[in-house]
Amino acid sequence: MSVDTITRGAQWPGLLNPDGSRWHYLDTAATAQKPQVVIDAVTRALGADYATVHRGVYARSADMTLAFEAARRKVAGLVNGDEGEIVFTRGATEAINLVAQTWGQANLKAGDRILLSTLEHHSNIVPWQLLRDRTGVEIDVCPLTEDGRIDLAAAERILTPAHKLVALAHVSNVLGSVLDVAQAVRLARAVGAKILLDGCQAVPRLAVDVKAMDADFYVFSAHKLYGPTGIGALWAKAAILDAMPPWQGGGAMIDRVTFERTTYAPAPQRFEAGTPAIVEAIGFGAAVDFVQAQGLDAIHAHEVALVAKAREALGRMNSVRLFGPEDSAGIVSFAIEGVHPHDLGTILDEEGVAIRAGHHCAQPLMDHLGVPATARASFGIYSDESDIAALVRGIERTKRIFG
Amino acid sequence: MSVDTITRGAQWPGLLNPDGSRWHYLDTAATAQKPQVVIDAVTRALGADYATVHRGVYARSADMTLAFEAARRKVAGLVNGDEGEIVFTRGATEAINLVAQTWGQANLKAGDRILLSTLEHHSNIVPWQLLRDRTGVEIDVCPLTEDGRIDLAAAERILTPAHKLVALAHVSNVLGSVLDVAQAVRLARAVGAKILLDGCQAVPRLAVDVKAMDADFYVFSAHKLYGPTGIGALWAKAAILDAMPPWQGGGAMIDRVTFERTTYAPAPQRFEAGTPAIVEAIGFGAAVDFVQAQGLDAIHAHEVALVAKAREALGRMNSVRLFGPEDSAGIVSFAIEGVHPHDLGTILDEEGVAIRAGHHCAQPLMDHLGVPATARASFGIYSDESDIAALVRGIERTKRIFG
Repeated sequence: MSVDTITRGAQWPGLLNPDGSRWHYLDTAATAQKPQVVIDAVTRALGADYATVHRGVYARSADMTLAFEAARRKVAGLVNGDEGEIVFTRGATEAINLVAQTWGQANLKAGDRILLSTLEHHSNIVPWQLLRDRTGVEIDVCPLTEDGRIDLAAAERILTPAHKLVALAHVSNVLGSVLDVAQAVRLARAVGAKILLDGCQAVPRLAVDVKAMDADFYVFSAHKLYGPTGIGALWAKAAILDAMPPWQGGGAMIDRVTFERTTYAPAPQRFEAGTPAIVEAIGFGAAVDFVQAQGLDAIHAHEVALVAKAREALGRMNSVRLFGPEDSAGIVSFAIEGVHPHDLGTILDEEGVAIRAGHHCAQPLMDHLGVPATARASFGIYSDESDIAALVRGIERTKRIFG
Repeated sequence: MSVDTITRGAQWPGLLNPDGSRWHYLDTAATAQKPQVVIDAVTRALGADYATVHRGVYARSADMTLAFEAARRKVAGLVNGDEGEIVFTRGATEAINLVAQTWGQANLKAGDRILLSTLEHHSNIVPWQLLRDRTGVEIDVCPLTEDGRIDLAAAERILTPAHKLVALAHVSNVLGSVLDVAQAVRLARAVGAKILLDGCQAVPRLAVDVKAMDADFYVFSAHKLYGPTGIGALWAKAAILDAMPPWQGGGAMIDRVTFERTTYAPAPQRFEAGTPAIVEAIGFGAAVDFVQAQGLDAIHAHEVALVAKAREALGRMNSVRLFGPEDSAGIVSFAIEGVHPHDLGTILDEEGVAIRAGHHCAQPLMDHLGVPATARASFGIYSDESDIAALVRGIERTKRIFG
């Protein structure tokens, strides 16, 4: 099935307006709409299949446990990791916090340094600042190239043996710029640093292979991958995960509890305290199946083509400023002279077009761009040229109103 | 609508066997089956209504934000808290870890003491042990009465001004024993300690009023309350919550981010980093609506009556040992001489009866009872006498097999 054929019809209930017409949803980088097959998987798991996991002595619980662990295997397979290397978290944000508060807390100390970049999402900034407050580590910030990529030549100049971690977005959530992962890993390795990649925007848009990358930590969320809210994943190299101390205590993450002394389960269970997000994991697995069936290379090509068309159409308009590189992976940020992005978003909404306007949880990048906010159109597997045409019509109307 | 009338028919898809017959599900204390109205709320939120919250400039996102915050209000209302006092967490386990790692880390130090009890779930033991490892606080354990209640007379003797926190289960997940909350709060106040109540098993079974209780922290999960997996709540007094430092960093929990210095949002947003469990919150709210419509007093009376019948029926059988008090709130733990609980659970499963067999994430309680595991039958709003009859038939068959 080609990417185009799956975008039609009733498979995406979230893409319909109440009157049944197509909603021009261009906010997929914030969260993706769900295919019917994911919704059905969730409905079934909450209903006829529902049971707890890892504990029940009855068949339905055993079946649910198999489905839950199969989901873990699918999620691992998506990034070519091993299933024992996947920790289910609430989302990518929690995954980064988990790394900061376990691996970071155990391994980093005053005088050690962390390299981030100007374009990081707050979720890849604030956890490290909280760690800085507790440990005295220092944070360095890699600048961007003119066209909005992480400037790895600059990173090479910044990095020293004091750097123990490099933590970068694989794809920028604002600019869509794609990191040169191979080079970033080389630079981190050259100084003996670990590397964490924020894969939230990459996993729905690119084929990701953590083994080929030789990454140490890779985080992503389900809801941006056409899956449920409330779940995400941390992938980490087995040897690193095994050595990480526990973070949250509770059921399922223990081996044996006495009040005097508690011993812990091996990873990944050690990091999954309490009843897990069972239904969400099943839905996450269904989303992975769906995306794999389409093929990430096809999805990527589809989004790159849409970006080219959108940039071309917007670039032709007077007073539109485009941010980010030409070869963005599915995301286009822009500004219109004299129109606040929020006003643009509001008027576009009246035209049935949903974009995001704001700082996109990337205030340091806004400061760098010299704007308080951008307008952002982001594409997904279901996006098509009619969405771009509607966007252009809406911008033209906005310009008439404000002109 | 009476409790009895809502237990019939297709409203509970999880209560049906594949052949359409009734599944005798007696594991509601592990996780509750979901009414169709909750499943429908989730399906709609994942589909036609789906959008992100707190950020979108388009109407559907604004609608979703209203629904998300309405869910917070409903969850607060269930325990008579204010909406600003509810933090959405992954579950009750995360809620306790949040308190331990923020309030506990900021306020407790070596020499301070925490009082727990012998019957606590691992989720109300291990987070405090992890805090003990980091801070040097000491943990005391309140013993139980003969019939399996937390012995508050003993608690009174143990408590000293060095105790800064009392953390107890409102209802035991193994024995169903109900804490005398008023007395527990009095004892904590008398030494100046805060009190945290683990309400996981209470909230689905009793009317809870955190204001009347004068509790400081109250935690519960949605999935035990007929709601979705992947979400729970921490209620805390506003003044306490406001003073708690952030725990997880990321989007939505910040005020302003620069690499030099980040400022944080007020509670509860300060504790909700990243895209929240949007769909799960909507489902949580639907579950609260459902439970409120039935009435917790009616649910409680229904479960107490079932417990009395079950204890009476099991008590008549030779070689059955019953644990816990007569007036358990919906939960009956027992053992059968010469039959391991797991074997019992397996044979009952063949009879279409689902019970839990194991340590129930309460190993210290198992040690206290002198057993490695118990069998546990737990009731919910949909349970009825046919479930008890099936349980009794299954036990009789098991005894024949093992006899």
